[in-house]
Amino acid sequence: MTTTDASPQDWPAIWPILRQVAAAGETYCWPRDITEDRTRAIWMAPPPNLTLVLRDAEVIVGTATLHPNQDGPGAHIANASFAVDPRCRGRGVGRRLAQDTLDRARAEGYRAMQFNAVVETNTGAVALWRSLGFRVLATVPEAFLHPTAGYVGLHVMHRAL
Amino acid sequence: MTTTDASPQDWPAIWPILRQVAAAGETYCWPRDITEDRTRAIWMAPPPNLTLVLRDAEVIVGTATLHPNQDGPGAHIANASFAVDPRCRGRGVGRRLAQDTLDRARAEGYRAMQFNAVVETNTGAVALWRSLGFRVLATVPEAFLHPTAGYVGLHVMHRAL
Repeated sequence: MTTTDASPQDWPAIWPILRQVAAAGETYCWPRDITEDRTRAIWMAPPPNLTLVLRDAEVIVGTATLHPNQDGPGAHIANASFAVDPRCRGRGVGRRLAQDTLDRARAEGYRAMQFNAVVETNTGAVALWRSLGFRVLATVPEAFLHPTAGYVGLHVMHRAL
Repeated sequence: MTTTDASPQDWPAIWPILRQVAAAGETYCWPRDITEDRTRAIWMAPPPNLTLVLRDAEVIVGTATLHPNQDGPGAHIANASFAVDPRCRGRGVGRRLAQDTLDRARAEGYRAMQFNAVVETNTGAVALWRSLGFRVLATVPEAFLHPTAGYVGLHVMHRAL
């Protein structure tokens, strides 16, 4: 598996992954029916945003974005988002993509990485981030309306780089 | 003092307030030299963003924006930003604007208000928010580069509505 910068030509392979993640409504603060144009504007945003893809035997199996969590005096802290093709779960794709994105954030000079909205019922993601050194700084109560669990918390997670 | 929705005609009075706040570099995660166009795009964003102005005897002395902190399943939590004309400090302008914005958020149906980045050295603002029922959920360490204090924390603050 190899992580590289995404090119515009990768979008047709990225979009079905993001569409499925959004439609499930369980992990992303996006409308479940988010349009392709809007998703592309978010995911393939211009610099300082970076878009990464993870390929397994030439096939894109995961994707990430990496960008400053805040602007100006807060731009030294990275934020990142991740999505893995649902058909490829359980193969270490998420962990590999996470590790490669942390390495890239370090190389780009960020001093820490922060997530603002990790859904607390997304226990796989929370466990992955903890295993990679992230701490839950706070859980914002009832901040996410889950399709089956109702109002659940959003973790703010952080690690130094 | 009266708080109303801003009209496009109010921008020439809003911009000098925001320009000064940004240039000071002490409280906002904006570039200190942020352009007028970019500031306007942020502050006067289309719905669901709302822009408010507080007038004292016809003169705009403070301004706020109110919008969802996240989209989709997170859109029931409000986020807001505030700026007061530096010449009008100490007159209760910030408190009045804060109270009116909380009332408006409640009227708009938000269930809570969250701030993601309250600079911990901005003790006046932190005290104001605490007095209005906000709690510090977490302090993200060294997340803001202050022009004189160096790296300081950013508070995540929250209150139910």
